[in-house]
Amino acid sequence: MSKKPLILVTNDDGINAPGIRSLISVMNTIGDVVVVAPDSPQSGMGHAITLNSTLHAKDVHLDEGPQKEFSCSGTPADCVKLAIRELADRVPDICVSGINHGSNSSINVIYSGTMSAAIEAGIEGIPAIGFSLLDYGWDANFEASKPFVKVITEEVLRHGLPNGVVLNVNIPNISEDAIKGIKICRQAKANWVEEFDKRKTPQGKDYYWLTGKFVNLDGGEDTDEWALENGYISVVPAQFDLTAHHFIKDLNSWNL
Amino acid sequence: MSKKPLILVTNDDGINAPGIRSLISVMNTIGDVVVVAPDSPQSGMGHAITLNSTLHAKDVHLDEGPQKEFSCSGTPADCVKLAIRELADRVPDICVSGINHGSNSSINVIYSGTMSAAIEAGIEGIPAIGFSLLDYGWDANFEASKPFVKVITEEVLRHGLPNGVVLNVNIPNISEDAIKGIKICRQAKANWVEEFDKRKTPQGKDYYWLTGKFVNLDGGEDTDEWALENGYISVVPAQFDLTAHHFIKDLNSWNL
Repeated sequence: MSKKPLILVTNDDGINAPGIRSLISVMNTIGDVVVVAPDSPQSGMGHAITLNSTLHAKDVHLDEGPQKEFSCSGTPADCVKLAIRELADRVPDICVSGINHGSNSSINVIYSGTMSAAIEAGIEGIPAIGFSLLDYGWDANFEASKPFVKVITEEVLRHGLPNGVVLNVNIPNISEDAIKGIKICRQAKANWVEEFDKRKTPQGKDYYWLTGKFVNLDGGEDTDEWALENGYISVVPAQFDLTAHHFIKDLNSWNL
Repeated sequence: MSKKPLILVTNDDGINAPGIRSLISVMNTIGDVVVVAPDSPQSGMGHAITLNSTLHAKDVHLDEGPQKEFSCSGTPADCVKLAIRELADRVPDICVSGINHGSNSSINVIYSGTMSAAIEAGIEGIPAIGFSLLDYGWDANFEASKPFVKVITEEVLRHGLPNGVVLNVNIPNISEDAIKGIKICRQAKANWVEEFDKRKTPQGKDYYWLTGKFVNLDGGEDTDEWALENGYISVVPAQFDLTAHHFIKDLNSWNL
């Protein structure tokens, strides 16, 4: 019986994405790897799950290496559920999601399929990490990320994570030499200012494309945005107990 | 110029759902109402947004009443973005989402389209509430909910909400007389234990239906689950800064 950790790998850009192929190659140096990832891109899916439709999983093998791979018709959260309950031979010791093509820092954690997979694993009690590179391109270069991805994963395997906490790791799009190190951060209070590009169909009906500008008004030097702008990899511990405990006392003074 | 508050109403069950029709009827007694809601059910969509497809919005009017209504092709989060940027005449004073057909208590907040709409409004700085009734049926009876929905909405209009906080309100499926009151709660630490119903297509290929059992091992009497089981309406203040602040110090001691 293998004594290596079982590592569940998933993502939201789809099983073919260069980011997940890089992540698999790093994980193969650490443990036994099972990949369960969406068969098509799922970016911006948030924490969606498939309730009213069937799920399909296909045994595939997309590149060299000892990993087992399944391509799944569902969302990232579906992939994690299906992996744990049906597809993995044993309970994974860790779940890693990504490497996402594009940032999941700050408020993006809310919209992120990458992080929803990590959170789903966390709900199941499995230590989990979402990795994202600040380059949206399909041809993004993940080489500089690899040693850091390896160190962070090994540290999580060594220490574990407390119940209810997963890690959100973002990596600046600079060379390995230029990366100054890893910084533990809080989520910056930033948001998107949407603009809708309003157009007309050939039939004259209005429709919209969602576009927007990311605006960070949080000047703190302890935030993920600050770290990334200053050449650091950001690590934010993220929780899925959303209770705003600090406001419970005030609410109790209302006339409800 | 109207001095009434502008109330944005949305949901995830779709603009035709009885739950949102009940919510609209209550909101018409409080302020000016603009409805922007999905044209089809979006349950389990989490905080999905439409990034790679167009959005359509149609001016409709599905029942009597002074409200303006738009049916939208997107997710609940899309509806809120589109309402604020394009469809509402002025910035809404409050956003209410629901009344959802089914619970969004405890960990369900993570998967909930109803709450993703409220959170999206919160990100935009608009006080927001998600309402859910613990009855998944399309023919659920929302009458008992109405006076409580009204009181909670009016209290939020009176007090406002702190930046970064929205309310998650769940209502037990019992008669108005049987409801004992409103309780401010924390999110219970419960989760779904999934079971996949594995079947074969007529062609002999495996596929899955997601099913599961909700398991609450959190015995606290300050939780939403406890309140609901004991005849109270639960109000959980929810935040979208996911940072697990309590774990930052420990993480800094790791070898990263």
